[in-house]
Amino acid sequence: MNIAILGKGTVGSGVDQIISEQNTAFTNQLKVVSIFVRPEKVDGSPKLTADYASILNNPDIDLIVEVLGGIEPAHTMIIDALKHGKSVVTANKAVVARHIQEFTKIAAENQVKFYFESSVGGGIPWIINLERALRIDKIDSIHGIFNGTSNFILDQMTKTGAKFDEVLKEAQDLGYAEADPSADIDGYDIENKLCISTDIAYDTIVEPGDHLLKFGIRNITHNDIQYFKEHGWIVKLLGRSFLKNNRYTFVIEPTLYSPGQIEAGVHNNYNYVGLRGDTIGKLSFNGQGAGMLPTAHALVQDILDVYLKNDHLDRKFNQKLELNNETKIMDYIVRTKADLNHYLPDYELKQDGEYWFVKQINTKLIHETVQQIALTGDKPFLACINGGAENDRS
Amino acid sequence: MNIAILGKGTVGSGVDQIISEQNTAFTNQLKVVSIFVRPEKVDGSPKLTADYASILNNPDIDLIVEVLGGIEPAHTMIIDALKHGKSVVTANKAVVARHIQEFTKIAAENQVKFYFESSVGGGIPWIINLERALRIDKIDSIHGIFNGTSNFILDQMTKTGAKFDEVLKEAQDLGYAEADPSADIDGYDIENKLCISTDIAYDTIVEPGDHLLKFGIRNITHNDIQYFKEHGWIVKLLGRSFLKNNRYTFVIEPTLYSPGQIEAGVHNNYNYVGLRGDTIGKLSFNGQGAGMLPTAHALVQDILDVYLKNDHLDRKFNQKLELNNETKIMDYIVRTKADLNHYLPDYELKQDGEYWFVKQINTKLIHETVQQIALTGDKPFLACINGGAENDRS
Repeated sequence: MNIAILGKGTVGSGVDQIISEQNTAFTNQLKVVSIFVRPEKVDGSPKLTADYASILNNPDIDLIVEVLGGIEPAHTMIIDALKHGKSVVTANKAVVARHIQEFTKIAAENQVKFYFESSVGGGIPWIINLERALRIDKIDSIHGIFNGTSNFILDQMTKTGAKFDEVLKEAQDLGYAEADPSADIDGYDIENKLCISTDIAYDTIVEPGDHLLKFGIRNITHNDIQYFKEHGWIVKLLGRSFLKNNRYTFVIEPTLYSPGQIEAGVHNNYNYVGLRGDTIGKLSFNGQGAGMLPTAHALVQDILDVYLKNDHLDRKFNQKLELNNETKIMDYIVRTKADLNHYLPDYELKQDGEYWFVKQINTKLIHETVQQIALTGDKPFLACINGGAENDRS
Repeated sequence: MNIAILGKGTVGSGVDQIISEQNTAFTNQLKVVSIFVRPEKVDGSPKLTADYASILNNPDIDLIVEVLGGIEPAHTMIIDALKHGKSVVTANKAVVARHIQEFTKIAAENQVKFYFESSVGGGIPWIINLERALRIDKIDSIHGIFNGTSNFILDQMTKTGAKFDEVLKEAQDLGYAEADPSADIDGYDIENKLCISTDIAYDTIVEPGDHLLKFGIRNITHNDIQYFKEHGWIVKLLGRSFLKNNRYTFVIEPTLYSPGQIEAGVHNNYNYVGLRGDTIGKLSFNGQGAGMLPTAHALVQDILDVYLKNDHLDRKFNQKLELNNETKIMDYIVRTKADLNHYLPDYELKQDGEYWFVKQINTKLIHETVQQIALTGDKPFLACINGGAENDRS
């Protein structure tokens, strides 16, 4: 099968490398014939082109790998490819989270495939297994450590006692974090991945946006990590959604675990993502959530599924569900200079210097309260205290 | 698709329940038309029969689910089914570990399928993902907590301080352990599962038997658990195989982890199984390793793959590899009344009462030494000290 790749960055180069260097009965059936790059990158190499029409109009190209990133021109180029009868596989979580229904519909109309395994969990075969579980089960929970960069930062701060800025710099030097780290540390990357996972799990559409609760790790300090440690906790940045009776919760927030809980054992830049189904129970995956070869591996798996006609789950994304984070009641810890009694007069609070324990509060109210405090110039931090017990925690 | 189930135990009933009660576009295509039971169990229910020929000769039955367990008559009945043009799916690890190549060959000759997802890892989609990874990668490591019963026993002993016999009794009362617990506590169940996984991973055949190193948890005491705890360790029963240059190691043994390592976070009767591939990296799965509905879920996944013609990986199991556990050098702790200096004069030993630290010894030698000591009437215990670091430990 002949393939064109849109973009020659890290992941695009990884796809090219796997197809040319891995020597299996499957990878040997694939051939990269064209790589789309910006005009200034065209250097005379036979595969490189800046002329997208030459790819779209080439009847020998069956499939296009989109690894440009960002919304436009990726969105338009994916639609153009599908309308020209090319299947598309992509690692671009931002564009998938916003246009999953449109892409899926146009792919079906043109009798081609649109797959996006690598957009969530990097090399982890997450989407395919979520979809396979749904062949049999109702799924009511999606949970996980969806972002390797923020996990690396928290893990390093915990292990070495280093400060946030130092570890962020290290992550940038290692290529884990972008120059502008906002997507990783403010939860936007997790938001895209949790939207995509939730869309599939509950057959609905969750649009990314400010209405979704997300609190990242930008404000975390060396002292916070130490304080949590002293109380027997390790902090992880979790994304979770739950479905119950046509209502779902959706939240991205720092979450505290005991060292004996499995999430606490997820180190470095690994991801840990999972689901809960009505017959399979709780099922989670631990693996490389990013990186050239793991992400490219997942793209090539999608390519092979197109080639082998192993059809993925057919989703309409048309369940009408209501977002409701007010039904989710948890214990939280908040670090702030503000007097929390003023903001939460009706809740049971326990103050310990700048740290406040807040008992049994709904997720929406605590997030909105801390966001309100942030507007005063304070740089508060919040973390959910995970109250459940190990594997069978929901 | 019409299905017959051989056996009406827990898992067979689970398959029947999922097919009749789960209401998806996929499960609705399946119908259980016949259940084979022993003559004394035939009670007039229309599906029950003790006449296997009536199933084999029924052209409307496309697929047979084998959940009898044990080697015979399961082995003969699977072959009969395949030769009658029926696909077979099975949860029977003992028969798969011994006859995987024969079943696979006969299935191919008769243009039907032989799948066995549920034989390893219960509800975890382990085999399918191992096979998918192999479409692209070379795999050089299989590792995991493959037995939920022994994990439950170790976890309960660690949490509650209870004695082995008390927790074994509890496991039996909960239905986790058989009346004869040997398969679970002496490593035979893990042996079958690690043989099957290794066969697929390295495209070879590893026959279960005494030549494979396995040391279970039969001899573990309350004091052992306490001693490990005092040294900052949690004990898990691990199965592992590694491939390097046509040689592989294969060992089942108690292994010590720090509380911050992910294996230490695997609680209750959960399994945690994984692989390492050359582009995907380390990938592990955590889920329900046994139980009626999770195991039945995995069987129904196989059934759906047959129905949807999603072909699994085609393996010949014909790589000639050499078993060699002498190349694997690790630190161990051994608890024995014997004088280990006598047995291992050439090794660096540190004695602490009945506990001995043995530095850098090969796996084969330490296992054989401890087995030799066991013959003297002592009930020694051994555990590998896991020296690696978290996720990227091999």
